[in-house]
Amino acid sequence: MSDQSFHGVLPYLVSPVDPDGRVRADVLARLCEHLIEAGVHGLVPLGSTGEFAYLSWEQQRRVVEVVVEAAAGRVPVIAGVASTTIIEAEARARAFERMGVDGILAILEAYFPIGDDGVFAYFEAIGKSVGLPVVLYTNPNFQRSDLSLPVIERLSHVPNIRYIKDASSNTGRLLSIINRVEGRMGVFAASAHIPACVMLIGGVGWMAGPACVAPRQSVALYEVCRRGDWQQAMALQRPLWALNQAFAKYNLAACIKGGLELQGYAVGAPLRPQSPLPPEGIAEVRAALASIGALQHAAA
Amino acid sequence: MSDQSFHGVLPYLVSPVDPDGRVRADVLARLCEHLIEAGVHGLVPLGSTGEFAYLSWEQQRRVVEVVVEAAAGRVPVIAGVASTTIIEAEARARAFERMGVDGILAILEAYFPIGDDGVFAYFEAIGKSVGLPVVLYTNPNFQRSDLSLPVIERLSHVPNIRYIKDASSNTGRLLSIINRVEGRMGVFAASAHIPACVMLIGGVGWMAGPACVAPRQSVALYEVCRRGDWQQAMALQRPLWALNQAFAKYNLAACIKGGLELQGYAVGAPLRPQSPLPPEGIAEVRAALASIGALQHAAA
Amino acid sequence: MSDQSFHGVLPYLVSPVDPDGRVRADVLARLCEHLIEAGVHGLVPLGSTGEFAYLSWEQQRRVVEVVVEAAAGRVPVIAGVASTTIIEAEARARAFERMGVDGILAILEAYFPIGDDGVFAYFEAIGKSVGLPVVLYTNPNFQRSDLSLPVIERLSHVPNIRYIKDASSNTGRLLSIINRVEGRMGVFAASAHIPACVMLIGGVGWMAGPACVAPRQSVALYEVCRRGDWQQAMALQRPLWALNQAFAKYNLAACIKGGLELQGYAVGAPLRPQSPLPPEGIAEVRAALASIGALQHAAA
Amino acid sequence: MSDQSFHGVLPYLVSPVDPDGRVRADVLARLCEHLIEAGVHGLVPLGSTGEFAYLSWEQQRRVVEVVVEAAAGRVPVIAGVASTTIIEAEARARAFERMGVDGILAILEAYFPIGDDGVFAYFEAIGKSVGLPVVLYTNPNFQRSDLSLPVIERLSHVPNIRYIKDASSNTGRLLSIINRVEGRMGVFAASAHIPACVMLIGGVGWMAGPACVAPRQSVALYEVCRRGDWQQAMALQRPLWALNQAFAKYNLAACIKGGLELQGYAVGAPLRPQSPLPPEGIAEVRAALASIGALQHAAA
Repeated sequence: MSDQSFHGVLPYLVSPVDPDGRVRADVLARLCEHLIEAGVHGLVPLGSTGEFAYLSWEQQRRVVEVVVEAAAGRVPVIAGVASTTIIEAEARARAFERMGVDGILAILEAYFPIGDDGVFAYFEAIGKSVGLPVVLYTNPNFQRSDLSLPVIERLSHVPNIRYIKDASSNTGRLLSIINRVEGRMGVFAASAHIPACVMLIGGVGWMAGPACVAPRQSVALYEVCRRGDWQQAMALQRPLWALNQAFAKYNLAACIKGGLELQGYAVGAPLRPQSPLPPEGIAEVRAALASIGALQHAAA
Repeated sequence: MSDQSFHGVLPYLVSPVDPDGRVRADVLARLCEHLIEAGVHGLVPLGSTGEFAYLSWEQQRRVVEVVVEAAAGRVPVIAGVASTTIIEAEARARAFERMGVDGILAILEAYFPIGDDGVFAYFEAIGKSVGLPVVLYTNPNFQRSDLSLPVIERLSHVPNIRYIKDASSNTGRLLSIINRVEGRMGVFAASAHIPACVMLIGGVGWMAGPACVAPRQSVALYEVCRRGDWQQAMALQRPLWALNQAFAKYNLAACIKGGLELQGYAVGAPLRPQSPLPPEGIAEVRAALASIGALQHAAA
Repeated sequence: MSDQSFHGVLPYLVSPVDPDGRVRADVLARLCEHLIEAGVHGLVPLGSTGEFAYLSWEQQRRVVEVVVEAAAGRVPVIAGVASTTIIEAEARARAFERMGVDGILAILEAYFPIGDDGVFAYFEAIGKSVGLPVVLYTNPNFQRSDLSLPVIERLSHVPNIRYIKDASSNTGRLLSIINRVEGRMGVFAASAHIPACVMLIGGVGWMAGPACVAPRQSVALYEVCRRGDWQQAMALQRPLWALNQAFAKYNLAACIKGGLELQGYAVGAPLRPQSPLPPEGIAEVRAALASIGALQHAAA
Repeated sequence: MSDQSFHGVLPYLVSPVDPDGRVRADVLARLCEHLIEAGVHGLVPLGSTGEFAYLSWEQQRRVVEVVVEAAAGRVPVIAGVASTTIIEAEARARAFERMGVDGILAILEAYFPIGDDGVFAYFEAIGKSVGLPVVLYTNPNFQRSDLSLPVIERLSHVPNIRYIKDASSNTGRLLSIINRVEGRMGVFAASAHIPACVMLIGGVGWMAGPACVAPRQSVALYEVCRRGDWQQAMALQRPLWALNQAFAKYNLAACIKGGLELQGYAVGAPLRPQSPLPPEGIAEVRAALASIGALQHAAA
């Protein structure tokens, strides 16, 4: 991928792993192919839905290798780098750069609380360690340290930190970020935001697990939003939201993996001790997918 | 007011009270007059911003009396009823009905956690105690008990429970509510939501403190949203949001009272032991008001 | 009561109220008599367990009136004063003083967060409004504002603020308080602390709901602690703790009222929309009471 | 070490690491020697204070190697195993067993919430993977998944899961655990509990960072507790508690490392992006150490 900007629908990929720890390369490659055919604008391995917190470094490398090869330069690949320490985050970002990814999704793990200066230092170091565009990731539900508005503003002045994905459910915070850093950073929505709303306020797209199981519908929504046809956008958005709602109720990885299994992708269960999607979750995901016409691939 | 529906911009009124506890009727009446002239679609005394939790029942009665008289039937008055017990909530709702309000904003206070059945029983009892439309209020930041989606659905079948105002910052939750109860309940945004987004997804308006200090700008935004002119809506929305951001940082009542003082309304400070707006807050509110042209009344 | 200090076992009284709102004076008086006979060192109406947050001012006055009359000067009566505003807290404390109570349990209710200065101002004002000893009350589980160590230290210099009851579950905090204010304030445990531990570190007793249903056993434990017989104290403490554990699982008022009903006191259910103790809770409380020999009054 | 039980004072060791990532083996070995001379009953590398969450697997192995060699069989070494996945936890526990540790401190990391069955499966798997005694670790402040009482009871029936260290601040929970599993599991206190209280209720000792900087004083306290001399225990406990209080205010690793630097151990700063102890923290730790006579080694 060349210098073109990141935008549009970027599904968070799941990480299919055998019980003995081997990455299912064939299943993952077939999923990437399917998503690219459906028109997605990029692929994001090793986000939350990708269970980065449950994979060894060797497994993480293998996942990225498979996705880069499957994408074959057709869409950008933005790989998640998550660590508690600066030294490891830098090493991982550089390793992914050498493997040919097009961007880094930078995630801060924390055991002890970290102050604003520590948070800034961590993300700045990742930015400086690579020549690729960096996407900041913040998820107050699963992380111990959050990106405050002043830190986001400081980070927006690091040249290659060019995007942020905010996984809170607070859409007003996205507008606050846009008002503060627009021009320097593009803002992506997460699955907890209504994509049509985020596009309305000036977002550039969304990175989210549900796009893995509803890629065509997500791309269609993105396109009407880009055209400014907001009435049609809401007509597409409302049934799609039922999907996000279903996913918010269950373990993210379990949900997306469960939905992909229904669509014919043998991605397996989330890594233990996480539990697979329970029967009532399977029923709910099946109904949500059926209502938007996303189960026809099940025969494939 | 007759049977027409509630919609549009409904400012949460502050409660101006002297240090000795007397309600400043003249200031409150003048504020109501100003808001109605600016085109607001209703007045809401005794919401969070109205410091209901800090007023005696006598003070609450007096506030409502002044507002009903000032409104003089030109716009609906929807008065807040907040209690921990069903017996007191019913008594207060009936008292306000006798005083001539047009609707009840129903608020559940809780000291101990309450289960779904208790929450339902509380709001259902308020609905049945009056012949007026009832607006459900839920604020997870300041209240101990929240309205779950299943309870909201059950309450939407009580005939006169016809609206809900959700004061979480989770806009996705509003779409979930709309998808579930549209047709039976209208959904209002709170100050933590971006009003343009809530209008896009099907909301009927917003009830919020900031509309007290920016009524004309709020009404203008509502009107372009109603016309479906979303590009213009965002042009108006973005500078207005700076105001909501400023208010989110400080004590709600202190902020709105501080802003109104800047505009020439002697509403005083919040009730003790709350603190008045600190100097940096006054500066921030002044800047936010100036940027949207809402300080021209300061000379009054 | 004269100037003697507060210490020992002070049960939090429940508030028996009829469905129509009338305080059951006979039941409450009989309970007080029973507790005094069992040797308790004081009575505390209108604590959390006393559902102060669910009672009107008239009901609160009636509860205190009945308890003061029942105590008849044999043990001190310390009445809870809870408010959001300083003006109301002062008025209520003075009213209870005129009614003959021996001390005030000062509780800060909050809807909006309050800073340290506001917290100090509230409690200091209560202290200055009466000539009685004041007990500070802090419960981080049910209250929005907490008493920080620096504020507690400042308050310990107000002459008649002489005690604190900390209802957190953090016993280390009690030792921090004792290390800081001993000599100026006595520290009482709550039901979430192990009384024997609090006595060991220098506490003066405990104020708690469970003492309502196990007064004799509580007094026996207090006495062995006072003698410094810690081995015997733990022998008494361990089975008693099962009772505190049971109470921690359910609504406080529901539990104590449920336990008292099992012991033959017709105290009724907690006020609506709170729920009465569910069947599994009744079974658990019954078992806990039986195991410490506290059901023999059931025949009464 | 043979089969003798774990008990007494077991300091959580810090992990001294150079800026380039190399473990300072000489400093760590000298610290171990000092602690053993002071009479501690065991050594615990890779607890929270040991920054396990900030160390690579290679660094973790090196820390354990150095500690096992320094202990030389004089006191048991109990090494922390922390992971999100069962497969990795098992592999690490077995690796430490081969390296000669005497017990495993089992820690569950979680990114997504895990249900009771997942929590049980994780700890049971660690227990079954080794032939060593296992200590359960639970810290609600820093971990996403907590050990419920029913899960603790289930785990107490796994033969070699013989201890639990609870790092909540809720001492009542320890008594609930003891009442439920005594005989099958020994209970250790953490730095948030008052050690004398935990010994009183039946605990077997404490595992905590502060013991690293106050080993002699901690051992003296343990011994008077064992003798049942509770009055003397409190006389020693009260000044020691000031140390725990100081540590609770700052980043754990920063505090203990800061204190050890004051005592002459060049353990360095916590790993980035954590911050070193700020000047006011250094002053507070220095004062706390001085007050208990724990700065005399500074000359060493």
